[in-house]
Amino acid sequence: MLYIVGLGPGSAELMSPMAQNALENVDVIVGYTTYIKLVKEYIKDKEVVNTGMKREIDRCKKAIELAENGQDVAVISSGDSGIYGMAGLIMEILASQNSNLKIKVVPGITASIGGAALLGAPLMNDFCHISLSDLMTPWEIIDKRLNAAAQGDFVICLYNPKSKGRPNHLKKALDIISTYKGEETIVGIAKDIGRKKEKVIVTTIKDLDDSIVDMTTTVIVGNKFTKVYNGMMYTPRGYNL
Amino acid sequence: MLYIVGLGPGSAELMSPMAQNALENVDVIVGYTTYIKLVKEYIKDKEVVNTGMKREIDRCKKAIELAENGQDVAVISSGDSGIYGMAGLIMEILASQNSNLKIKVVPGITASIGGAALLGAPLMNDFCHISLSDLMTPWEIIDKRLNAAAQGDFVICLYNPKSKGRPNHLKKALDIISTYKGEETIVGIAKDIGRKKEKVIVTTIKDLDDSIVDMTTTVIVGNKFTKVYNGMMYTPRGYNL
Repeated sequence: MLYIVGLGPGSAELMSPMAQNALENVDVIVGYTTYIKLVKEYIKDKEVVNTGMKREIDRCKKAIELAENGQDVAVISSGDSGIYGMAGLIMEILASQNSNLKIKVVPGITASIGGAALLGAPLMNDFCHISLSDLMTPWEIIDKRLNAAAQGDFVICLYNPKSKGRPNHLKKALDIISTYKGEETIVGIAKDIGRKKEKVIVTTIKDLDDSIVDMTTTVIVGNKFTKVYNGMMYTPRGYNL
Repeated sequence: MLYIVGLGPGSAELMSPMAQNALENVDVIVGYTTYIKLVKEYIKDKEVVNTGMKREIDRCKKAIELAENGQDVAVISSGDSGIYGMAGLIMEILASQNSNLKIKVVPGITASIGGAALLGAPLMNDFCHISLSDLMTPWEIIDKRLNAAAQGDFVICLYNPKSKGRPNHLKKALDIISTYKGEETIVGIAKDIGRKKEKVIVTTIKDLDDSIVDMTTTVIVGNKFTKVYNGMMYTPRGYNL
């Protein structure tokens, strides 16, 4: 059996018992080096297949091969394994190989949900997730989705907001969003969620200093009704109090 | 301290250790009767405040009052407490009362993530959450968001898809979505996730029989590239295999 396991945002406190059980019981754990460090207590005498970033196709193919040979294998992702994670890639490979391998996706708490809990309650009304990485999605599609999401006044969770290779994507995205929502729209930043360096900031599009934003950061842009209280942000649901 | 705790989709296996610890350590647990049943092993000699559906404002006010009087209180929601859950309502009430009460939001696995794991990997590309309940959001806004989300070809997670009071909302929503995406678009249905009666169906907009859909169901509509393999649905991320 091949388990595709979401570890949650980073701390053991947010990893589900289902994920813990899978990691305890498999023969092999497969993952990107950074994530293998998060599960070191489960490794003990297990086989570990770890490779660096951008080697995920190799890792997934190896995991499938081992599972097809009868071993129980866990492929790990941070957050949820089905949200920009490894579950989809595994399924793409299985389909391309016409394989009947049985898989089990073990869900996890994705960065937006972990970040939202630290920021307050920004996701109380309809929301979107958009990845600003154009490695695999052309910028024209990302641009179109940013326009659609802002026009619909969704709360918008931005994944992969900025990296060395794309230092201006967050700024470009916020420029598009503020055309519809205005520059006073509340923005929350959650960085290194569930880790020692964890940090959150609540600000506005206008006042955002994006120098702290990198690939370990989730950015949540409120809707037109999102408010700040006691340093936290929340989006009203529409109750009559 | 007031904890606002997300229980996950329903099974203990998907409730985080952070949620379990909060439930073990508080003096009072507050929640809708159905959710109190999910945490009965934590109750023992604790005080329980439970009321029926649509009494959530009363419950949250009571929880705030108890916490302000020095007790440790947990308000529980299924799924994630910040996604159409109790966290936002608590913050709205605190703001209206100008209260400085300290709160801690404990995140959980929301229905779309739990459902996606059972369905395969539908959320591998940009996606939206839209609630079809017009109890607190006017249908005009829901309609606008359905149009925006479909136009941007987001994967769309529909919460509260249908109830006795609004039997036609899912049909109306799918009619709007199929205008942009086409009737052959893949749809996944996840019902009673993490419970004994758990059921998933993978179909298309055209072939969907919505008679099994009710308030315990999450509907996930794919994007134009979402595919079916081995009875599961997945949305390609864009890898070159």
